[in-house]
Amino acid sequence: MKAGLPRDGAIDGGAYLYPVRVYYEDTDAAGVVYYANYLKFAERARTEMLRRLGIEQQRLRAESGILFVVRRCTIDFLAPARLDDDLAVETRLAALGGASLDIDQDVVRDGDRLVRLAVRIACIGSSGRPHRLPPALKAALASLSNPETRMVMAHAR
Amino acid sequence: MKAGLPRDGAIDGGAYLYPVRVYYEDTDAAGVVYYANYLKFAERARTEMLRRLGIEQQRLRAESGILFVVRRCTIDFLAPARLDDDLAVETRLAALGGASLDIDQDVVRDGDRLVRLAVRIACIGSSGRPHRLPPALKAALASLSNPETRMVMAHAR
Amino acid sequence: MKAGLPRDGAIDGGAYLYPVRVYYEDTDAAGVVYYANYLKFAERARTEMLRRLGIEQQRLRAESGILFVVRRCTIDFLAPARLDDDLAVETRLAALGGASLDIDQDVVRDGDRLVRLAVRIACIGSSGRPHRLPPALKAALASLSNPETRMVMAHAR
Amino acid sequence: MKAGLPRDGAIDGGAYLYPVRVYYEDTDAAGVVYYANYLKFAERARTEMLRRLGIEQQRLRAESGILFVVRRCTIDFLAPARLDDDLAVETRLAALGGASLDIDQDVVRDGDRLVRLAVRIACIGSSGRPHRLPPALKAALASLSNPETRMVMAHAR
Repeated sequence: MKAGLPRDGAIDGGAYLYPVRVYYEDTDAAGVVYYANYLKFAERARTEMLRRLGIEQQRLRAESGILFVVRRCTIDFLAPARLDDDLAVETRLAALGGASLDIDQDVVRDGDRLVRLAVRIACIGSSGRPHRLPPALKAALASLSNPETRMVMAHAR
Repeated sequence: MKAGLPRDGAIDGGAYLYPVRVYYEDTDAAGVVYYANYLKFAERARTEMLRRLGIEQQRLRAESGILFVVRRCTIDFLAPARLDDDLAVETRLAALGGASLDIDQDVVRDGDRLVRLAVRIACIGSSGRPHRLPPALKAALASLSNPETRMVMAHAR
Repeated sequence: MKAGLPRDGAIDGGAYLYPVRVYYEDTDAAGVVYYANYLKFAERARTEMLRRLGIEQQRLRAESGILFVVRRCTIDFLAPARLDDDLAVETRLAALGGASLDIDQDVVRDGDRLVRLAVRIACIGSSGRPHRLPPALKAALASLSNPETRMVMAHAR
Repeated sequence: MKAGLPRDGAIDGGAYLYPVRVYYEDTDAAGVVYYANYLKFAERARTEMLRRLGIEQQRLRAESGILFVVRRCTIDFLAPARLDDDLAVETRLAALGGASLDIDQDVVRDGDRLVRLAVRIACIGSSGRPHRLPPALKAALASLSNPETRMVMAHAR
């Protein structure tokens, strides 16, 4: 783990990189990571990315009733991850809509992509109806692909 | 599964028997059921036992603010369960207190006990403080060890 | 659960119907079923469908080195399932290829579709390469949409 | 997470401290961490502690057939953890036997102990029988309570 990503990840080249270590709880009797668990890794990465970009989902919900929900997810299982693997989840913004966003997430090991997820996330208001994405979120996500972000983030910590 | 327990279990000899099939999700890379997952099996069994005895936990909570929480759990791992195993969780009342109860749960396969759990459950009121066990629960649990229960339950369905 | 599906499901109108009860383990702090857990429900349903159609995956693997792996999965989250819900997973064959098959799975509650999964499954030989689907599997899957299947299955038990 | 523990934990005062962030996957519909999941947190902490002390369990198993298995676990649930909590698992050696060891693990939040686990771990040889603890493990565990360890560990990284 020495040279690995820090616990709260890193921003690099328009992507947010989040580290995941594979434990027994993640694997199954076939000796590989159980297929549903990549969705857990992906959700951890999205949560930490937002937290790092200054968006606390619980506060957003408490203050303005806004909630992000996954509407659709496509997962390609290219190669299996295994016990003790030191993985990274690379998260990129694919498209920004009025009340939703598309995110691409790759689970990689030593530069090899093992699993690819395409995630459609909707923004929902307290009524349960679609709600415009908060401007703070849009700005935060835009900063992901900003070449200045890496330095800025480093200073902010 | 032909000769197995029905989906909502059975009451026999003072115990509630609940069937659990082992799927990939339950196993780990050591080829056995991951140790934390026996707690899931045990909680499913307790829930179905109460439901079968006529206690709906969600209604109890909504109507009287009463909640059951696990305070303490001791687990002995005697032998491992494996993929595709057809297990049963045997649940017995061990002791009945004023605001808590002790339950013994055995995870068995073909008559062999694999895992033994001793669970202390507390009854909590809406204030978060201990609350007397509801009389209906006491009566329901007492009926477990009543020799008439089996027949009564069969009629009730 | 009285009028519900039996533990090993039912075959009806070209679909295999498998019952899933929602327990605390399946839910999250948003009060709904955690999104990754629908993949667990779907895998349980596929496993029981194959078992019911006479295909034991572990035996198949031991005898001929053949393994089924999920290559791709698209999930649409239409509405949330909640604690204590009595769900059914409806599984249908969508397309049969030489070394893969496509399966559609709907998670339904009282006739309402909550989640829809489209799953691409590949058949892999002991070398890790694609392997032709075993004829017994093709025949078993074809029997799903055979109007005689329901009766045949009932006799076979 | 700024001032928190690094991803591979820290050794302090005879304990190994390992950080755990609570995500949706860990919680349930009661709004708290699901009770079985503390066993996952505890196992992650034990694995990282051993890794940090230089013991790779997979290599140990491959080279000498030695495996560590949990034989018994007692869990006291004192107070619930919640979504987004930044927890630490504090792991201490309680007793060292010939072929087993006892470990105490506390899940803490801001200095408050939420859950306490007492774990009995057995060392098993390739035959499945009890096996003497490897001297390297004994030495590594002893170093936990050695006041020099902190500095030594820092140098070793």
